[in-house]
Amino acid sequence: MSKERRRIDGILELVKKFPSVPKAGLPASVGVEGLDDCSVVPIGNGIDLIIGSDFVRGEEFHLYRAGMLARQDIGYFLIGANASDLAAMGAAPLGIVVAFRYTPEMSDKEFQDIMEGICMACADFGMPLLGGDTGGYPLSVLSAAAIGTCPSGRALLRSGGREGDKLFLTGDVGTAGAAIRYFINTPEEKRTLTTQQEECLLSAWRRVKPAIEQGRLLVESGLSRCAIDTSDGLKVSCEQLAAASHLDVVVQPSTVPLSEVAEKVADLCGVNRLEVAFGDSVDFRLLFSVGKHEVEKLKDLFASRDFPLFEIGEFKRMGSKPAAYLTSPDGLGLIPGVGWLQ
Amino acid sequence: MSKERRRIDGILELVKKFPSVPKAGLPASVGVEGLDDCSVVPIGNGIDLIIGSDFVRGEEFHLYRAGMLARQDIGYFLIGANASDLAAMGAAPLGIVVAFRYTPEMSDKEFQDIMEGICMACADFGMPLLGGDTGGYPLSVLSAAAIGTCPSGRALLRSGGREGDKLFLTGDVGTAGAAIRYFINTPEEKRTLTTQQEECLLSAWRRVKPAIEQGRLLVESGLSRCAIDTSDGLKVSCEQLAAASHLDVVVQPSTVPLSEVAEKVADLCGVNRLEVAFGDSVDFRLLFSVGKHEVEKLKDLFASRDFPLFEIGEFKRMGSKPAAYLTSPDGLGLIPGVGWLQ
Repeated sequence: MSKERRRIDGILELVKKFPSVPKAGLPASVGVEGLDDCSVVPIGNGIDLIIGSDFVRGEEFHLYRAGMLARQDIGYFLIGANASDLAAMGAAPLGIVVAFRYTPEMSDKEFQDIMEGICMACADFGMPLLGGDTGGYPLSVLSAAAIGTCPSGRALLRSGGREGDKLFLTGDVGTAGAAIRYFINTPEEKRTLTTQQEECLLSAWRRVKPAIEQGRLLVESGLSRCAIDTSDGLKVSCEQLAAASHLDVVVQPSTVPLSEVAEKVADLCGVNRLEVAFGDSVDFRLLFSVGKHEVEKLKDLFASRDFPLFEIGEFKRMGSKPAAYLTSPDGLGLIPGVGWLQ
Repeated sequence: MSKERRRIDGILELVKKFPSVPKAGLPASVGVEGLDDCSVVPIGNGIDLIIGSDFVRGEEFHLYRAGMLARQDIGYFLIGANASDLAAMGAAPLGIVVAFRYTPEMSDKEFQDIMEGICMACADFGMPLLGGDTGGYPLSVLSAAAIGTCPSGRALLRSGGREGDKLFLTGDVGTAGAAIRYFINTPEEKRTLTTQQEECLLSAWRRVKPAIEQGRLLVESGLSRCAIDTSDGLKVSCEQLAAASHLDVVVQPSTVPLSEVAEKVADLCGVNRLEVAFGDSVDFRLLFSVGKHEVEKLKDLFASRDFPLFEIGEFKRMGSKPAAYLTSPDGLGLIPGVGWLQ
């Protein structure tokens, strides 16, 4: 068991040991135990409040330290990562609060640059900066909490999958992970992509694109009850949906949309393409499921909005312990790649 | 102008430069520009959502580093500080999300101890832990965001003061600041308090007591429209109420409830008692105002709930630039002490 996993289990034990009932409104219908991207708090009148929180490493990002990202980019990323948690629940954003601590060395200009990225992203995602906390600390800190709403009982949950549901991705995968592989783990003389391809790799980090509109569309249309974002990589996302929905996830490898530039990086580095597609690539896509009789409706709806859509597998009930598999000519195999939490 | 103040002004400029309208619900009625303890977001049906965020220094607290606080205490403090932001608005807590990053050196036991403090405080304050973010970082991080609700348009605001309103505190002040003064800034041979007095100093940090019930009572009774918590010290709180309400705050020094133990520390250290009462003592009291004709009602209400109450001054309109003053035999004087933001 990973250290991270052990600690989450410890938190869940403590939450049981010290039960807490809110002094206003109803208890969360999906709380910390749900391990969803956000919690769901019913507040009456047909509205559920959706809240989540993401810390980002910011100045500790490999690509920032290597000089490939601007300070605006890490501010933008903070908001994007938090917006993606709302997207995964299908929530409409209300706003965000940010805790931003700076080191004694950080100049006013540097502070402003990061804040500018934060404000740009808030404007782009329709998610106003509501406030937060700022001040000094020996190491810089970028953390936030996003809130949104969903119609009562309609939020997309990791546990919402049903047997026979088809699985979809809202976009191609692998670009963010390939950027790390290429810029950080590949010797300079082997980095032979064109400038345009390199820009494409970096754009996955510079201007993250949370799937807010797609998540809302899934909730409003009622087509899906089950989603996760791929912020820990596609392999982990498949495994987490399987575990939460108590079903097996079976993916057809030929249908997994590895991005063109990530494919090039895989080949350049001599790495299995599937390993790149399923690895710890922070692409902020939604992985979601739809009943098999609703697939045509979904395709029409996404086409009408010009949203990309990739069908990659389905929920099945096979073994006793839910797991995620790849189909192969010899039957089913395990999914390659290493996720963020593993 | 302090560095902190300069940075907050910079944030406000950026928020204007990149306007952001939420894609769901109404825009915040009190946003980041309000500089209130929390933002206020109307969500219809007579409900305002209240959200704030506080980072705490945790393992960097002077008293923690000096071995005077347990790990549970800093977890508890994190939740208390965030609960106090809701209290200052008069909100009923719905829950809290926590970002908790640990260093490579932090053992599982140490992590659990801090989480235990977090969960104990959540239970004590009726503010369920809804989720958050955990993982590694080179320095430990404790940040959170609390959400609550208020009846529409009824949240307590720093700007809610009216000319002639009387000013009240929900408890005595100075203990938290005196603890730092005594344990950190006083040589060991001069630390001559009894064990019981020393425990009393430390309890202000170990088990912080946000005034959640008092805040809710002020909103529910409709007696107040104006409050702030004293988390940056009483002097700063007076100045911030004055600035936001565009009025002068005039405090009667003899009525300021310096705690008994803080008084002892002031005398022991040869420091002016008022400097300790108004300095950067994180006591989490509410400083709030009530119309002069409502004072008796307020006193009866607080007495009926056994809540302490101290009248310390009033809002006046005197000069052109709103400020905070102390009365003195020679007229009005400036308030002594140094606040957290100064």
